[in-house]
Amino acid sequence: MDHLPLDVTHLIHDLETLAGFTEAGFAGWTRRAFSPAFIEGRAWLAAQMRAAGLTAAIDAAGNLVGRRAGTTTAPTLVIGSHTDTVPGAGRFDGMLGVLTGIAVARALQSADIGLRHPLEIIDFLAEEPNPFGVSCIGSMGLAGALDRAALDRRDHDGRTLAEALSAVGGQPAALATVAREPGTVAAYVELHIEQGRVLEAANAALGAVRGIVGIRRVRLQLIGRPDHAGTTPMPLRYDALAAAAETVLAVERAGRATPDAVATVGALTVSPNQENVVPGVVDLAFELRSLDWPTVERLWQDVMDAAQAACAARGVTLTVGDVGDAAPMWTPDWLVHTIAGVCAELVPGAPTLASGAGHDAMWMGRIAPSGMIFVRCRDGRSHCPEEYAAPEDIAAGLAALAQTLLILDRQLD
Amino acid sequence: MDHLPLDVTHLIHDLETLAGFTEAGFAGWTRRAFSPAFIEGRAWLAAQMRAAGLTAAIDAAGNLVGRRAGTTTAPTLVIGSHTDTVPGAGRFDGMLGVLTGIAVARALQSADIGLRHPLEIIDFLAEEPNPFGVSCIGSMGLAGALDRAALDRRDHDGRTLAEALSAVGGQPAALATVAREPGTVAAYVELHIEQGRVLEAANAALGAVRGIVGIRRVRLQLIGRPDHAGTTPMPLRYDALAAAAETVLAVERAGRATPDAVATVGALTVSPNQENVVPGVVDLAFELRSLDWPTVERLWQDVMDAAQAACAARGVTLTVGDVGDAAPMWTPDWLVHTIAGVCAELVPGAPTLASGAGHDAMWMGRIAPSGMIFVRCRDGRSHCPEEYAAPEDIAAGLAALAQTLLILDRQLD
Repeated sequence: MDHLPLDVTHLIHDLETLAGFTEAGFAGWTRRAFSPAFIEGRAWLAAQMRAAGLTAAIDAAGNLVGRRAGTTTAPTLVIGSHTDTVPGAGRFDGMLGVLTGIAVARALQSADIGLRHPLEIIDFLAEEPNPFGVSCIGSMGLAGALDRAALDRRDHDGRTLAEALSAVGGQPAALATVAREPGTVAAYVELHIEQGRVLEAANAALGAVRGIVGIRRVRLQLIGRPDHAGTTPMPLRYDALAAAAETVLAVERAGRATPDAVATVGALTVSPNQENVVPGVVDLAFELRSLDWPTVERLWQDVMDAAQAACAARGVTLTVGDVGDAAPMWTPDWLVHTIAGVCAELVPGAPTLASGAGHDAMWMGRIAPSGMIFVRCRDGRSHCPEEYAAPEDIAAGLAALAQTLLILDRQLD
Repeated sequence: MDHLPLDVTHLIHDLETLAGFTEAGFAGWTRRAFSPAFIEGRAWLAAQMRAAGLTAAIDAAGNLVGRRAGTTTAPTLVIGSHTDTVPGAGRFDGMLGVLTGIAVARALQSADIGLRHPLEIIDFLAEEPNPFGVSCIGSMGLAGALDRAALDRRDHDGRTLAEALSAVGGQPAALATVAREPGTVAAYVELHIEQGRVLEAANAALGAVRGIVGIRRVRLQLIGRPDHAGTTPMPLRYDALAAAAETVLAVERAGRATPDAVATVGALTVSPNQENVVPGVVDLAFELRSLDWPTVERLWQDVMDAAQAACAARGVTLTVGDVGDAAPMWTPDWLVHTIAGVCAELVPGAPTLASGAGHDAMWMGRIAPSGMIFVRCRDGRSHCPEEYAAPEDIAAGLAALAQTLLILDRQLD
């Protein structure tokens, strides 16, 4: 393995400094996209990029791009993630991927190593949910997926996304110029905290990501009849909650039926929700996630069959809302093997796992081979002040990212 | 069967007139206990009592009592119900029992029939839920169950029940004088709309009531762990909603297990109730009702065993709130047979059924043999403007009440 002069102490210090750009009024740390704290954090970030030998500029889609020339005309290697947060967040989600990228660039500069491929470290704009209702805005832009309808969406103040984009240095009118043509990005690599407990359960600091799961989401409405709970015998009832309970258990069974899927009823409300009234209406939302889309469709059928039967048996009417699908992103096998090999060398037994959550890599996977390195985080906590990754795990992640980059630079045309 | 000159037209007209005493600001009809509409309605009601040959006075517990002397010193026969309503109510719940009682008295007067027993027609105070949190205030008073703690309860304006009671003509300090000694009431009979669909399903205008079910109510809290629905594999979850769903189905099974019981989860709330978060906490309330208390306790054990198992299987903690019990009220067999015989003569095939809801008869059953006559109501609707009983069913009910009274007068000492 190559030995770059990776400075973990500097990286940890950078994480602390960037966390200091935070909005008041929330627990923990908050740096929402488009906020003053976000813009100030990026100004500091651009300075770190430049100090690491990168040019730094905001592209038309509002991404902060740090670039280093290659020694050949090969396509670009890209490392990225995001620095915006949800309200009341922690200090690692997103930030760790951008700052480890800059740390790698800093080591390359320090050792005066020229890569064959140009290298870009990208802080993607607005990966997290935001008032415009569009996540991953910057990576959608690079993937050519940010359309007019998205730009016209408004926040609670009536400001359009196009206006907000301009305010952070983007150029909505020039969006077409930012979309990368297939072939111009040799590969994309994103390092991120796992935001789950699989690595912790496996006692491993790192994991190689096989891909990002596809998601099917739907809302169901079960309409029965509200009746007096004392005067209505069981055979005369149309109990929407009992039918919903069978549906909840069908969803759980679907998730348990295959180790590569999860299935969840996260939200359920009962009406009129009174102790002595048979539930008249239940609204619930469920989702299925798997890397393997045919699995999602098969589990969907199982759940819907069970829901239909549960409703039919009780005279309850089932209404199925719009089905929302997000396709899975598969990391190419060769890239999974490269990343898994690097991780296993640093962390014996490091597992390969699917990402159950979305990331900018989901969009980059549309235009380039895209892979991810997961770093263990404490108790799976994320999007909260308790979010934490240990310095030694961060060090392992930094080494894995640097090593992966060096291998890809040699391996790829 | 005796033939009293029962005037159904007059009764229907009385129902319409009493309904006219209503509070503004609600759908349908509203005459909440202690309201001006309630007090005005009672003034009209007292006049109807007097016109029917009854003395009319408000007792210490705030009940409006119309009394007719007997030809002997036998204990009193009591007919009663209530004229208060929930907000946005109908025109039959309670009112029908009081007005049919007055209609019987009117017929006795018109035919100049003297009963051996004194007869009282009672409009009990505040049977419905009210801001003091005590239902059946007046019948509790007659049963000697209205204690100091109840009188000290306050409504949203800070007024005590004792003050409210005085304002409608009651005498809180003299409550002890109103409690009837066992033996002083020969029997109590209450006519009421069914508030369910059993008679409708049986195609019968009338039913004889076997008794009022006992109720056990409890709130459960199921505490799991809120986790990311994408990044948390099924085996690492603590899903409070899945455990709750098994509990809901166990409650339904318990209710279906015996035809003489009902079991309901009416209220259930999920936290944080977000589509992409495994439910961390579920609060639910369930109740079991049956005339047979050992059945309630057996079903309780079945449900709690299932809930414990469902929680244990998922690492979810189950917390059981205070258990609230209301004992069943059994109508004595001889009185059920009397009422059922009268109903069957008027309505061939009239069924005998339990009352799943509470009534003033529940409290009167503590001090006297107490029975009820149910009148069919449309689609089981009650506590809403759609509440409806057909004139011909009301006529049958009036005839049954009068006939029951005449039989009891002959039958009882």
